[in-house]
Amino acid sequence: MNTITRTALLSVSLAALGATGAMAQEDKTVIAVSIPAATHGWTGGVVYHAEQAEQEIEAAFPDIDIVLKTSPSATAQVSALEDLTASQDIAALVILPFTSEELTGPVEQVKAGGTFITVVDRGLTDPAIQDLYVAGNNIAVGANTAEYLAEQLGGEGEIVVLRGIPTVIDDERIQGFTEVIDGTNIKILDIQYANWNQDEAFTLMQDYLAKYPHIDAVWANDDDMLLGVLEAIEQSGRTEIRYALGGNGMKDVIEMVMANDPVTPVSTPYPPSMIKTAIYMTAAQFHGQAPVRGTVLLDAPLITPENAEQFYFPDSPF
Amino acid sequence: MNTITRTALLSVSLAALGATGAMAQEDKTVIAVSIPAATHGWTGGVVYHAEQAEQEIEAAFPDIDIVLKTSPSATAQVSALEDLTASQDIAALVILPFTSEELTGPVEQVKAGGTFITVVDRGLTDPAIQDLYVAGNNIAVGANTAEYLAEQLGGEGEIVVLRGIPTVIDDERIQGFTEVIDGTNIKILDIQYANWNQDEAFTLMQDYLAKYPHIDAVWANDDDMLLGVLEAIEQSGRTEIRYALGGNGMKDVIEMVMANDPVTPVSTPYPPSMIKTAIYMTAAQFHGQAPVRGTVLLDAPLITPENAEQFYFPDSPF
Repeated sequence: MNTITRTALLSVSLAALGATGAMAQEDKTVIAVSIPAATHGWTGGVVYHAEQAEQEIEAAFPDIDIVLKTSPSATAQVSALEDLTASQDIAALVILPFTSEELTGPVEQVKAGGTFITVVDRGLTDPAIQDLYVAGNNIAVGANTAEYLAEQLGGEGEIVVLRGIPTVIDDERIQGFTEVIDGTNIKILDIQYANWNQDEAFTLMQDYLAKYPHIDAVWANDDDMLLGVLEAIEQSGRTEIRYALGGNGMKDVIEMVMANDPVTPVSTPYPPSMIKTAIYMTAAQFHGQAPVRGTVLLDAPLITPENAEQFYFPDSPF
Repeated sequence: MNTITRTALLSVSLAALGATGAMAQEDKTVIAVSIPAATHGWTGGVVYHAEQAEQEIEAAFPDIDIVLKTSPSATAQVSALEDLTASQDIAALVILPFTSEELTGPVEQVKAGGTFITVVDRGLTDPAIQDLYVAGNNIAVGANTAEYLAEQLGGEGEIVVLRGIPTVIDDERIQGFTEVIDGTNIKILDIQYANWNQDEAFTLMQDYLAKYPHIDAVWANDDDMLLGVLEAIEQSGRTEIRYALGGNGMKDVIEMVMANDPVTPVSTPYPPSMIKTAIYMTAAQFHGQAPVRGTVLLDAPLITPENAEQFYFPDSPF
């Protein structure tokens, strides 16, 4: 073969390759993912799991292209939606809205263009907009923790409880917890807000320790607050507190569970990885026509030493 | 390189390859899928979609091995579970139980061995056994059809309704339908059982036609029964019936929707492909640690000419 022929063939091949490449790109189903930036532990986990889902889904399904955008505020997320839809045809949008109020209108506009809408965690003001809704079960977070605690304490004892930020999420957790405790002889000595903040939880636990000479157990409601609670207990030198439990399945707390920690032997998940569930399900709809329109309510089973590995992500920030 | 060295190297390579092959096989996560055999249209669809899911998931996730078993009876399904668990370690079981009563005990035994349990469509007697439950929404099947019909008829007219086999599924569909119709001026002239059977639906519709000189619309409750209803209407030569609607998203009926049929312009899905959703979600748990424990309630949005393609499987028997 002479050089000219080879070059000509090479050009043809490259042109063919280019055409195939362009076609493949064009044929790909674009799933846009819009989430808050990593402003605190839990959203840090959301970003980590969304990035993992992008890699895994693109490797598994060559017909799917995931486009991921993180936004540091509700206003920025509204702009991100405009950018995402202006530049390309989006088959589906998976969104964890910064706030329900500010994002409902913009998501409704995306929907009007024929895009499949998957909403995660915080609902929109108008649920009719979503095709798929993936949410955690905060009542189960409270109830499953309370059932475990009641069993360990033999249905008796005196406990203190910390609340998060006044929201529906916090109300549901407390409701699930107190409904179970009300059916026992366990007494809740005190219950105050510490805003899902580790430092505020530390201060509040110091107050509780000063006020109550005997405490059998603490429910910190959330793993971030649990770390503050544990610090306060340690500094106090108090040894009668048999259990200090949180919730959310934070990595540091799952490590305690895996190490058979006697004071924190369990956690309950409200996992940031739920973004991954939403992305996998949306991909299943578009890759395999698997029906996913509807509602997913994720349970909050106890995380124990036996199953902790399933909930543990050593590389995740949360 | 001499021949002896090359042969030796080749042997080493093959041995290494063999070891890797065996390890890969051993490392695969086995998801067993147990479903009824294709004894009628809907279960035929279940088998088709489970087979598709097996191919798609195994191609996408090399770490997952799907083992599919179909059973012609509840007793056979119990034996199939014994075989599946006796011969291998099963990480997860996806099951559409033949009957709740007969399968609850056997599935509980599989669960006791540490297997993740995904239940589809018909629940077990004890819901605590399942990790994930995927179900359709029969109330929505009835309600969404009724809302469409009420709007098309302007909230007025006289209709007849067919019921299926006396079951919770049938009760829910009828409840969803009648609750909407009760809020209109539409009168239900008659409502009788035809057992989800095409021939019985044909006979019942002949009775309705003989009994009522004017009928504005028919709700057949199910697409199999709808085919019998349409045959009876055609044979009668009656032309005043403006709508005859079913439910379930059968292929033949979706073809009518796609062809803009004036009498059957919509359907509602209760799709056998929900088995696929369950298999994809279980795979997401084991391939990507995406949390899926909980409940999925699939919606029943109207299938219209605009979206019919998403619900259409030309190669499926259903």
